[in-house]
Order: sequence, then structure tokens, then C-alpha cells
Amino acid sequence: MLTLFFSPGACSLAAHIALIDSGLPFALHRLKFAENEQRSAHYLKVNPKGRVPALVTEKGTLTETLAILLFIAQMAPDKQLAPLNDPFALAQLQGFNSFIASTVHVNHAHGRRATRWADEPTSIEDMKRKVPATMRDCFRLIEEGMLAGPWVLGEAYSVADPYLFVMSGWLKGDGVDIAEFPRVEDHYRRMQERPSVQKALADEAAA
Amino acid sequence: MLTLFFSPGACSLAAHIALIDSGLPFALHRLKFAENEQRSAHYLKVNPKGRVPALVTEKGTLTETLAILLFIAQMAPDKQLAPLNDPFALAQLQGFNSFIASTVHVNHAHGRRATRWADEPTSIEDMKRKVPATMRDCFRLIEEGMLAGPWVLGEAYSVADPYLFVMSGWLKGDGVDIAEFPRVEDHYRRMQERPSVQKALADEAAA
Repeated sequence: MLTLFFSPGACSLAAHIALIDSGLPFALHRLKFAENEQRSAHYLKVNPKGRVPALVTEKGTLTETLAILLFIAQMAPDKQLAPLNDPFALAQLQGFNSFIASTVHVNHAHGRRATRWADEPTSIEDMKRKVPATMRDCFRLIEEGMLAGPWVLGEAYSVADPYLFVMSGWLKGDGVDIAEFPRVEDHYRRMQERPSVQKALADEAAA
Repeated sequence: MLTLFFSPGACSLAAHIALIDSGLPFALHRLKFAENEQRSAHYLKVNPKGRVPALVTEKGTLTETLAILLFIAQMAPDKQLAPLNDPFALAQLQGFNSFIASTVHVNHAHGRRATRWADEPTSIEDMKRKVPATMRDCFRLIEEGMLAGPWVLGEAYSVADPYLFVMSGWLKGDGVDIAEFPRVEDHYRRMQERPSVQKALADEAAA
């Protein structure tokens, strides 16, 4: 059995959607960020980084969204959630997800978690002010080249799609209108129509 | 033929070492950061993100270190540079490399590329001051759990090792003494003894 540690609306939503897509049996374990539960002694034993997501498996615990997404795709090969037999396409998928993790999510985090990288209130405000510009830069790259369409990799849906969906959903809170990026907006709407996405959102709201 | 776009000592060194480890034929193309060549019109056609590394292949261009490393491992399966037939271990490898890309490298970048995330000189200085602390936090996690030893994944060398090597080599410039982390230091020394590492460093110095 797999157990996903998550917080509603956090980047763990990508893994949650992918788990539903995969058809693999799994349990959910919600962490209460408002109570700082991700830094509790109990959770630090699961994931010493104190972040979500973490996926507990029979073999041990996996962390980092793009690694968890790859694992889910590998464990449900019949669902074809990643181009597992095409080295170039698989590297493209990992490259897309790495851009999300190391650039898009990082830029977003400067609006809410800026104390990770600086201490002075003026610095924190400075970082917050820049978030719309840095998110816009990222989504311009996605809009103009990285999103093949209709799905990230082209005709085939993959685990890159829920990860992009989560980032697109953060744009409004980051002060960016998704309508500036019509292809991204189209992708976001198509994701919202998927039963797996609707179930993940409903289950996180009820958790 | 593969062509690696790199800058000496940048994170592209990890892919460079892995290419030598793989035995695959490849060419090097140096970008002169001092002349801002990574933002030139010519290079932006190769990689619109304006960053290194980029690996040009017969099928197209790959970016993001962890994706390029996975591609190299897949193209040289006889060299066993990644646990390609073990879904959990492969996800662990990608998880390690994702932590490097999205946390360790990002923390380091706040010392030299802070203008990505803020504009005021006081913010830039504030971010620089915090780099030793954030790099130390990362390397404590690596020292105390993520580095299985002697190599990142344990007994088997993999493409995670050159990536860790590059980060370890940045510690001194980030104001952190690698001797604080004996297991990381041991890994760093063992990497320095590898002919592929020595060749990559010599070729980058001569490029």
C-alpha cells in the first residue's frame, strides 16, 4: 500500500492526481500546515526535509514531486503516464518537471516562503513584489514552447500535466492572470474536466 | 553526435562528467558567461531559458541537469549509471537530483544570482548573508541520510555522484567548510580520484 503525505492545494496535489490516474491503491495522510505539522518530530521521521509530498512505499519513502510522479508512472505502466520506453521523451518529461520544481515553484515560493532565503522585512517585501514578473517569465516559456499541446508532451497525457495544472492554479494568487497565456489556460480548463482532478480536489477539500 | 553546451565550473560539469563516464561520443561547446553569451540570440535558439547545460541530440535539445543525466544513463545502459530496471531506486535517484536542482543549487544561486528574485541592493546583501546557513542545512540532510555511501545510492556509482560533486565543490565559495561533513568530504575526494572527473576538469580549464 502507498501512503501520500499531503497538504490541501500544495504541490502534493500533482502526485495526488497522478495516483488517481494510475489506479494504484493508496491512502492519504493530511498534514496541517497551519499547525506546522510538517516540522513535527513524527513527520520529520517520514521526511527529514519537512516538506510535502512524501510517498511511503513498501520499499521506503520517496520525496520530491518529480521522483514520486516517475515512480507512479512506472508502477502503472498500462496507464502510460510517462514515455517509459523512449529515452529522449522520458528525459523531456523529467526536464519539464525539473523546470517546474527548480524554477516555477521556487519563484512562487518567494511570495510566501521568502524567509527561506533572507531575514529582513524589506527583503521579504522586495521578493514578494517580484513574484508576478518571475512567474510571468516562466509561463511565457511554457506558453511559447514547452507546452506542446494539447498536453505537455503533445498528444499523450503524462504526469507532467497535473504538475503544470498545480502551478497554473497558483497564478492568480501570484498576481498573474492566466488569460495572458491562452494555451496554458486551455490546458488548465481541460485538466479541470478530468474526473481524476475533480476527485483529488474534492478529497483534499474534505480531508 | 551529442553536443553539450557548458560553462566551466557551472552545474553543467555534472553532465560533462557523466558523458565521459558513459563512453558516448560528444562535442563540447563553451559559453562565455563573462560576455553573457548564454543570453545571446544564437544560444536562446538552442535553449530559450538562457541557462546551461543544454544537450543537443539527434532528436532535439534537452535541458535541466537531472533530465540530461537520466538521458545519458539510458543511452549507455551497459555502464549502469542509473538503476534503470528498479522503479523505486530510479525514483530515489531522481529524488536526490531534484533536491540538488530545486533546493541546493537554488540556495547557492542566492549568493550570485539574487537579482533573479529581488531588486534592492539591501535585499541582495541579505540573501548573500544567508547562503552559508542554507547550504549548511542542505548538506546536513545529505550527510545524515541522503548520501548512502560510499556513493549517493550506496555501493553503485550513478549519475547522482557527479551532481553532488559539483555542489560540494561550491561549498568553499559559499562560506562553508566541507570538513563539517566528513562523509560528503570523503565522497568529494573519491570523485576527485576518478579519471572521468579529472578529464572533465582539465577539458573545461582548457576550453
